[in-house]
Amino acid sequence: MRRALVPGSFDPVTNGHFDIISRASAMFDEVLVAVAPNGTKSPLFTIEERTEMLEEVCAPCENVVVTTFEGLLVEFACRNGVTAIVKGLRAVSDFEYELQMALMNRRLQPEIETLFLMTGAEYSYLSSSIVKEIARLGGAVEGLVPDCVEQRLRQKVAH
Amino acid sequence: MRRALVPGSFDPVTNGHFDIISRASAMFDEVLVAVAPNGTKSPLFTIEERTEMLEEVCAPCENVVVTTFEGLLVEFACRNGVTAIVKGLRAVSDFEYELQMALMNRRLQPEIETLFLMTGAEYSYLSSSIVKEIARLGGAVEGLVPDCVEQRLRQKVAH
Amino acid sequence: MRRALVPGSFDPVTNGHFDIISRASAMFDEVLVAVAPNGTKSPLFTIEERTEMLEEVCAPCENVVVTTFEGLLVEFACRNGVTAIVKGLRAVSDFEYELQMALMNRRLQPEIETLFLMTGAEYSYLSSSIVKEIARLGGAVEGLVPDCVEQRLRQKVAH
Amino acid sequence: MRRALVPGSFDPVTNGHFDIISRASAMFDEVLVAVAPNGTKSPLFTIEERTEMLEEVCAPCENVVVTTFEGLLVEFACRNGVTAIVKGLRAVSDFEYELQMALMNRRLQPEIETLFLMTGAEYSYLSSSIVKEIARLGGAVEGLVPDCVEQRLRQKVAH
Amino acid sequence: MRRALVPGSFDPVTNGHFDIISRASAMFDEVLVAVAPNGTKSPLFTIEERTEMLEEVCAPCENVVVTTFEGLLVEFACRNGVTAIVKGLRAVSDFEYELQMALMNRRLQPEIETLFLMTGAEYSYLSSSIVKEIARLGGAVEGLVPDCVEQRLRQKVAH
Amino acid sequence: MRRALVPGSFDPVTNGHFDIISRASAMFDEVLVAVAPNGTKSPLFTIEERTEMLEEVCAPCENVVVTTFEGLLVEFACRNGVTAIVKGLRAVSDFEYELQMALMNRRLQPEIETLFLMTGAEYSYLSSSIVKEIARLGGAVEGLVPDCVEQRLRQKVAH
Repeated sequence: MRRALVPGSFDPVTNGHFDIISRASAMFDEVLVAVAPNGTKSPLFTIEERTEMLEEVCAPCENVVVTTFEGLLVEFACRNGVTAIVKGLRAVSDFEYELQMALMNRRLQPEIETLFLMTGAEYSYLSSSIVKEIARLGGAVEGLVPDCVEQRLRQKVAH
Repeated sequence: MRRALVPGSFDPVTNGHFDIISRASAMFDEVLVAVAPNGTKSPLFTIEERTEMLEEVCAPCENVVVTTFEGLLVEFACRNGVTAIVKGLRAVSDFEYELQMALMNRRLQPEIETLFLMTGAEYSYLSSSIVKEIARLGGAVEGLVPDCVEQRLRQKVAH
Repeated sequence: MRRALVPGSFDPVTNGHFDIISRASAMFDEVLVAVAPNGTKSPLFTIEERTEMLEEVCAPCENVVVTTFEGLLVEFACRNGVTAIVKGLRAVSDFEYELQMALMNRRLQPEIETLFLMTGAEYSYLSSSIVKEIARLGGAVEGLVPDCVEQRLRQKVAH
Repeated sequence: MRRALVPGSFDPVTNGHFDIISRASAMFDEVLVAVAPNGTKSPLFTIEERTEMLEEVCAPCENVVVTTFEGLLVEFACRNGVTAIVKGLRAVSDFEYELQMALMNRRLQPEIETLFLMTGAEYSYLSSSIVKEIARLGGAVEGLVPDCVEQRLRQKVAH
Repeated sequence: MRRALVPGSFDPVTNGHFDIISRASAMFDEVLVAVAPNGTKSPLFTIEERTEMLEEVCAPCENVVVTTFEGLLVEFACRNGVTAIVKGLRAVSDFEYELQMALMNRRLQPEIETLFLMTGAEYSYLSSSIVKEIARLGGAVEGLVPDCVEQRLRQKVAH
Repeated sequence: MRRALVPGSFDPVTNGHFDIISRASAMFDEVLVAVAPNGTKSPLFTIEERTEMLEEVCAPCENVVVTTFEGLLVEFACRNGVTAIVKGLRAVSDFEYELQMALMNRRLQPEIETLFLMTGAEYSYLSSSIVKEIARLGGAVEGLVPDCVEQRLRQKVAH
């Protein structure tokens, strides 16, 4: 069985993230979506909230399992029998960062491969950060995030 | 009447900013220079100081008005009858960030166009951050910022 | 009167080109679309064919005039009372080339400004070259070029 | 069965190409290596020679099949029951070109996914062009291409 | 006598840093390695610890002197009779930042030249930040940093 | 004695090239400017003309010697007792190409170092190609190339 790992902070999950998850889901037998605890930055949503939203959003994909991870990503991948880490690429700045991470991860753990998918053109300008910024400034985020995320985002920001 | 909007933190305004403002001023009937409150980062100058310096610097351009804004930039632009947001591009890193913002702003408000000017070669290595860093370390910033800014910067940093 | 210049080879005009032309048309009193003779590369369409297609495509925009040019672009711009050259930016490679051209053109003729628009996300992967390549290999180009161009492209390639 | 497609000109196959092919071979049930006829540029090796070298080099990977293709890559992929096209990324310039191709291919044929692997650091500066240039100038290419390619390259260049 | 300056935070020194230092050491009569106090970010190691590790690592290069600096880099360079500042370049993001700094430094002090070396391919994905992150998450950093740094890093992180 | 090598096609030498040559001349005991024969592209000036112009332009720098080379650059460097190859960097596209070449050259001949200087901001948009294009279209190239080159360029283009 081929198992992919899609890691991220997902603070919150966007339609761009879900595009990558569902494309991975079509190519692999199982997809593990792993939420990083995000220790250094201060996330808007707790790790429980981020996991809940992902579970709701990924429910239609039967072979997707949502989980959390701590420690080194490649060791988590090994312990969970993962074949490949799957990431999306939007722009040159993504590319340079991900190239560095992929080369380092391959050095730390040569068994684990990293695969990249190009983000769809319609999501190329989408990120969790920009979505939070728009919501904070009172803008409409529909079409950028799944419906259930949109509601939660509005509530969070209202506080 | 065609009205352009030049947004920024202007902490403080540099000769590079003024180059973009004066070029916009030559192309549009009116130019609104809008100072962002810069809520998340900690600016060196207060929003009042930044506005004052801009007003002094832009005084020779009769069709330039300095103001402040809050909330979503594109909604501010709409409320003020703006035709186009005008921004300068210095480097690839600017380009990628501005591409993302321009595409997102167009999605939020298709009526508002974003126009880009290439920063003059002599200003390509200039930014508010590097000017503040040089001043903080006791270096000379003349020729990088307008004279009135140079004085204020020296005073700020002396404290 | 403010007059913009949109230069290009337009071999052939794509939906991405027309997006830039129509956005320029909304911002300026008049838009001059100028077809470059393309002396060094071997174009697929003659300059007459390229001009004809552009005229058909731009017919709905009343303030757009299609023409050809020879010699230095900035001198052509000056002779025709142009305020600004308008170009689209798709990617980092575009940006670097256009930055070089804009700085050089400003040096040759400081009166002429170059303005950039970010290409819409849906056209970010579109170019005349890739359209010709797809047509040559028998692929469908509908939605990538205007209808009248699609027909002519099919005929050209059939020969 | 999951079948990957690794397309290229392979003029000639380098150690960097073989790194991508063997990594694809470990992740997929079958890998189709497809040599493009390279109609427009003038290749150093004929398509038969390029195919022969690939077959020799890929012999140790039992699930790799070498073939040639003509026409649109995505249509060839469809006709051959391919799940994913696999490509290597070395640098920003690769990234921008491959992003354009992947988005266009997805539009032409949404069923076919394109996956990217980061080229190993030791191959980041390797390409068929630079290998041919070095051989032409009398330099040593050992370690850059498989042994059988090195011999043929020396013969080719001697003529 | 030609004296080079290799500045940095060195928090901690990596094998990539040492590669640049030793290459500079082979080209210049003397190399000054200058540790920046790193006032704004919060370093993992104190400036004394960073200097100690550098001294241990650079001991084999007889013409290398480790020191610290404050204030403007170019003024420090002038006061110390430096011919050229030497920096490593790994990626496009490095390049853009270093281009900006080099142009600004040349403006502040035209006497001081900045020279760049391309980081070896095997160090292209290496930085102090990623090394600290790996150590913090319990991963192995051997081969990425000198042995004496590896030990200290383990101790630091254990606290 | 430290000897630098500045290679190029110099078709023709521009003020940007001369900036790099004179900066190298200030840092090294001797500078060898080596004109590449440029076998594949069709140069505007013969190798003799390019060498003559360089000799005229470099005359004020006593430690600069102009020559031509054939074969592998690093082998030419070795045979001529060169310490370092010196190149200018203008933009990201230069950087990626030069990174590839520097890594490959270091592999072919680890003794030879490649050093990079950032091109002055005022030359960032300057290249032999754009100068030839402007001259061909009848534009003024003064200030972009040395005076003696300007004359020869005008004559060449007049034919």
